Amino acid sequence: MRKIEHIGIAVKDLEASNQLFEKLFGAPAYKMEEVASEGVKTSFFMNGPNKIELLEATNPDSPIAKFLEKKGEGIHHIAFDVEDIVAEIARLKEEGFTVLNETPKKGADNKLVAFLHPKGTNGVLVELCQEIA
Amino acid sequence: MRKIEHIGIAVKDLEASNQLFEKLFGAPAYKMEEVASEGVKTSFFMNGPNKIELLEATNPDSPIAKFLEKKGEGIHHIAFDVEDIVAEIARLKEEGFTVLNETPKKGADNKLVAFLHPKGTNGVLVELCQEIA
Repeated sequence: MRKIEHIGIAVKDLEASNQLFEKLFGAPAYKMEEVASEGVKTSFFMNGPNKIELLEATNPDSPIAKFLEKKGEGIHHIAFDVEDIVAEIARLKEEGFTVLNETPKKGADNKLVAFLHPKGTNGVLVELCQEIA
Repeated sequence: MRKIEHIGIAVKDLEASNQLFEKLFGAPAYKMEEVASEGVKTSFFMNGPNKIELLEATNPDSPIAKFLEKKGEGIHHIAFDVEDIVAEIARLKEEGFTVLNETPKKGADNKLVAFLHPKGTNGVLVELCQEIA
């Protein structure tokens, strides 16, 4: 794990939150993207070597909709940049973590991603992500 | 805001979580520190340009104890590295954010810190931190 690639924040209203985070960072989102398979609309803000991803649910059964219903708006996951996601999944399984996606899947922002079960990581939803070359 | 300085994670048992995050990162905590004024014991893990801070409450009235009671273990705050915390506090107040510490206070890891009220930031507790020269 080479750095925090991004922090994912669940929001109810992406447009309103985009304005809020533009004020926070002093710069607008550099990208907006819908990931239909995950039922989310996303926007990304640069922060030096890191990013902030805002996520709004596009359907009521999506993981983000359920998170918002249960916990309200707030930090949803932390994503770490990895060089070789397949090797990292194997290493973490060996260490006893529960990997939710044994085969990495395509995520937002041109990434292969896999999640660890938060029950094994002190309640933190950890995402591994590798840039698709 | 120049980067994510660290992510703060509230944990019940710092020693057990240190072992867990050592497995996650493949390297142990580089520092442990008690901040008596905040009622916490902390440990820090390096992750490239970023850090992860684990926080265990040392008294039942501390903010971390209350967070654990209300929400359980998980991500507690996100801290951004700023060059000039006084200027950044002024800028964010001007933008309409509620700054909880108008005068920055001494935090862990040799930092001056100030927090923004999460009600104004989509439920995210945002910390500003400036390294003490």
